[in-house]
Amino acid sequence: MHLRLDGRESEVKLQTEVRYYEEPELDNAVMVCGLPGIGSVAWLAVNHLQKELHAQLFAEVFSPMFSPKVWLAEDGVVGLMKGEFHYWKNKPRGPDLLLFTANEQPYSPEGQYELADVVLDLARKFAAGKVVTMGGMATDRLTEPPKVYAGATDVGLVKELEGFGAVKLAGGAITGTNGLIFGLAKLKKIPAVCLLAETPGYLSLDANAAKAALELFSHMLNVSVDLTALEKQAKENADAVQKAKDLSRGFPREARKGGDRELPYVS
Amino acid sequence: MHLRLDGRESEVKLQTEVRYYEEPELDNAVMVCGLPGIGSVAWLAVNHLQKELHAQLFAEVFSPMFSPKVWLAEDGVVGLMKGEFHYWKNKPRGPDLLLFTANEQPYSPEGQYELADVVLDLARKFAAGKVVTMGGMATDRLTEPPKVYAGATDVGLVKELEGFGAVKLAGGAITGTNGLIFGLAKLKKIPAVCLLAETPGYLSLDANAAKAALELFSHMLNVSVDLTALEKQAKENADAVQKAKDLSRGFPREARKGGDRELPYVS
Amino acid sequence: MHLRLDGRESEVKLQTEVRYYEEPELDNAVMVCGLPGIGSVAWLAVNHLQKELHAQLFAEVFSPMFSPKVWLAEDGVVGLMKGEFHYWKNKPRGPDLLLFTANEQPYSPEGQYELADVVLDLARKFAAGKVVTMGGMATDRLTEPPKVYAGATDVGLVKELEGFGAVKLAGGAITGTNGLIFGLAKLKKIPAVCLLAETPGYLSLDANAAKAALELFSHMLNVSVDLTALEKQAKENADAVQKAKDLSRGFPREARKGGDRELPYVS
Amino acid sequence: MHLRLDGRESEVKLQTEVRYYEEPELDNAVMVCGLPGIGSVAWLAVNHLQKELHAQLFAEVFSPMFSPKVWLAEDGVVGLMKGEFHYWKNKPRGPDLLLFTANEQPYSPEGQYELADVVLDLARKFAAGKVVTMGGMATDRLTEPPKVYAGATDVGLVKELEGFGAVKLAGGAITGTNGLIFGLAKLKKIPAVCLLAETPGYLSLDANAAKAALELFSHMLNVSVDLTALEKQAKENADAVQKAKDLSRGFPREARKGGDRELPYVS
Repeated sequence: MHLRLDGRESEVKLQTEVRYYEEPELDNAVMVCGLPGIGSVAWLAVNHLQKELHAQLFAEVFSPMFSPKVWLAEDGVVGLMKGEFHYWKNKPRGPDLLLFTANEQPYSPEGQYELADVVLDLARKFAAGKVVTMGGMATDRLTEPPKVYAGATDVGLVKELEGFGAVKLAGGAITGTNGLIFGLAKLKKIPAVCLLAETPGYLSLDANAAKAALELFSHMLNVSVDLTALEKQAKENADAVQKAKDLSRGFPREARKGGDRELPYVS
Repeated sequence: MHLRLDGRESEVKLQTEVRYYEEPELDNAVMVCGLPGIGSVAWLAVNHLQKELHAQLFAEVFSPMFSPKVWLAEDGVVGLMKGEFHYWKNKPRGPDLLLFTANEQPYSPEGQYELADVVLDLARKFAAGKVVTMGGMATDRLTEPPKVYAGATDVGLVKELEGFGAVKLAGGAITGTNGLIFGLAKLKKIPAVCLLAETPGYLSLDANAAKAALELFSHMLNVSVDLTALEKQAKENADAVQKAKDLSRGFPREARKGGDRELPYVS
Repeated sequence: MHLRLDGRESEVKLQTEVRYYEEPELDNAVMVCGLPGIGSVAWLAVNHLQKELHAQLFAEVFSPMFSPKVWLAEDGVVGLMKGEFHYWKNKPRGPDLLLFTANEQPYSPEGQYELADVVLDLARKFAAGKVVTMGGMATDRLTEPPKVYAGATDVGLVKELEGFGAVKLAGGAITGTNGLIFGLAKLKKIPAVCLLAETPGYLSLDANAAKAALELFSHMLNVSVDLTALEKQAKENADAVQKAKDLSRGFPREARKGGDRELPYVS
Repeated sequence: MHLRLDGRESEVKLQTEVRYYEEPELDNAVMVCGLPGIGSVAWLAVNHLQKELHAQLFAEVFSPMFSPKVWLAEDGVVGLMKGEFHYWKNKPRGPDLLLFTANEQPYSPEGQYELADVVLDLARKFAAGKVVTMGGMATDRLTEPPKVYAGATDVGLVKELEGFGAVKLAGGAITGTNGLIFGLAKLKKIPAVCLLAETPGYLSLDANAAKAALELFSHMLNVSVDLTALEKQAKENADAVQKAKDLSRGFPREARKGGDRELPYVS
């Protein structure tokens, strides 16, 4: 129960909880974070890694910092808003990958700080040597392939990323949990990078931007990943956009696909 | 007192408190939750059970997560915003019922998570084997009787409910405390179901939807309840709605009845 | 300091604090609460008691639940938002009075619950046998003298107040800290009453309503208080209102007087 | 990690943290606070002291009470929102200066109270004998040089400031962290003053107002500081304003300069 106004016994209030289903042994782990955001770039990228690499779910995070709602799967089974941690063993010697993604970002600033802290705590627990966050950079002067901007926790890492073709992210600010994971990593002395791929802003799922970010990611870590599924999704998006333009119907509506996305609300 | 800026003695801040008046012995308890929501379906249903079964009040929950206001009863006596727990012994062997309802849902997301947690803690304390939450599903294509949608914490329970005539709730999201009680039950490994009865959305007290939800509930638990009072209220609503339509005065105003509802504010 | 991300030493966050300057011995204490609200009825009433009875300041409450601002007195000295506790010895045997008032109500619901809890803790500490809260009841059908409505924590007290000429407050709700002090007193088993004097709603300082509330209060506790200053202020208000009406300039502007009221903001 | 719903091990939530890089020995320390505000007067003044005196960074404060965002420096390296503490040894015997400034004020009232408390804790830790906060007073009747208003924690200090040419700040309120540091200092029995320099309100960086405040500050503490850089910036502002007026283009746009200011948002 909780504290009684006239007594002393107490149990603690509902708190953020990480529930472990397994505690894998990881070598030279790198954590990759993919929360929903502009163009869902990070979420698409991490979701793609999870599927392509057949990464294994090993923990989930639940929190009163997520929206106060639950969703129903197609089979009628309920699920809470949550974050998921998957791992992939990159034999024989790593770098193994720790993948983190969630249904949504916490709605409050305090919640965003808290989730970022929980995620980094887990990274530290598994001795991750690097944290990679991603996101979208909205622009109206899109190139093909999209440019990928990069920032990091130290100058050496920035230069390394520039060596792989990233454009240095000089000036500007990054809001939200992805940014906080990136910035708090510096405070906790864990090397971290942030990759922002250009995206038009009117696509809620920009597979082409996700692909660009993952290509840089692959080079950086020397981990090869088949990007075919993303390329296919990117082409479908492009065709749909072109069709809409041809029909002079203005900006294309959002194409909502995949997984745990919510449909009409019931209450 | 509270913490002093320059000292160390401390007592804790005002917290959510469950105050017990009795600690009943329950067999095979099932908790039924009825917070205010669309059409007040859950609240009406649980309120009806409470009256028909002559359920006994045994605990109340007070919380700074409820609105900062108090209400006055007809006799001038003050009451705080609160939740109430009643029980009914279903002799000889159950399932006994634990009924939970409240004046309102907490106004903040954190408060909704906290109340859901408190309610489930109490369910666990009394070894409830199942939790039932209810609610309304707003629709403009209403049938008679209203359809009842159902979701659950596992597929087996969903199928069981479909067997009783419920429509599987596939996809979608449920916001608010009713949804959180349902979802957190899964996290706490307590089987739970959610019954959402169709309601037009313009009735603040839809007795017909409450009746539909209770019929399914009765079959599910094999507990028979006289629904006459709800049928009567449903008919009165229907007559009032028809009258308003006949008079071409647009949508009927809300018919506010019953219990602890607030009247004009004074401050 | 506060908790370090990588360490364990900690001191607690800034909290609500009651700072005692004296710990008076009180007999049969009655606490009277006067926070700002509609017509400032409670604040005016308690402020008047404080001046007329030459009540002695013995404690102050500071809290991060008050607005994040400070005010400057005429002599340039800074003050924080705060609550004040005064006491008056009603020799030879009481009832002694504990007077509570504050610059403002906390801005958040949680803050209102917390302040109410702090105030009642202090009432309990001094073994107060009764808590009296006051407020205004906005109406457009004002009588002279204004009616005073009353609610209480039990029926007996309500009848007692009706005996003194109060109108039973049946139904309705009271929002804010005054209401919470009243309602939480019931939870903490301290008898409490709430007196709401009718006020037009366009006066920010209704001395006439405060006078009506205090007259009832005096009878209830058998404590006689000279109300001349309030009558004088009431007359001045009435003259000003009449003048404005005569000049057909619409509703009179607020006449701001006294004490710790804030003037133009600087930041 | 954090508390588990079904377990007991716990580590605490992310909290405000002061990270020390050095613990200087200070004599007769005076703390000077310069958070962003109207005209950025305080921030400019403290920033100027920091540069002119070559003050040494010795601690930083990080907090979930700051905005949930991170910024990128020109070299692509990430930084969190934070506050900085610098010190300057004023040989041979002080008063040494403790300088505090931050990227921003916390966005919530609770955060503002907390940061003010953290800052004063540090002042106390270094036995600061006085705290000076500054700010802008928006006015449309500007004089040259701008008037400086002053308030303090006691009348003696107010008179002392009037002796140096300040205008007593009588009445009014000061919102935000600067005000809270000032007011909480009184509660913690640390002498404090607040200097508010007149500023037109349409300049986001009023170097002339900062200069006026610093001149008074210098006299008060008998610490001489070269104000040339501020005078230069003031003149540039004035020229720009005049130019805009000449071109009859209405109010001049904000001239954003310096340090850690954020540029376009990316997310």
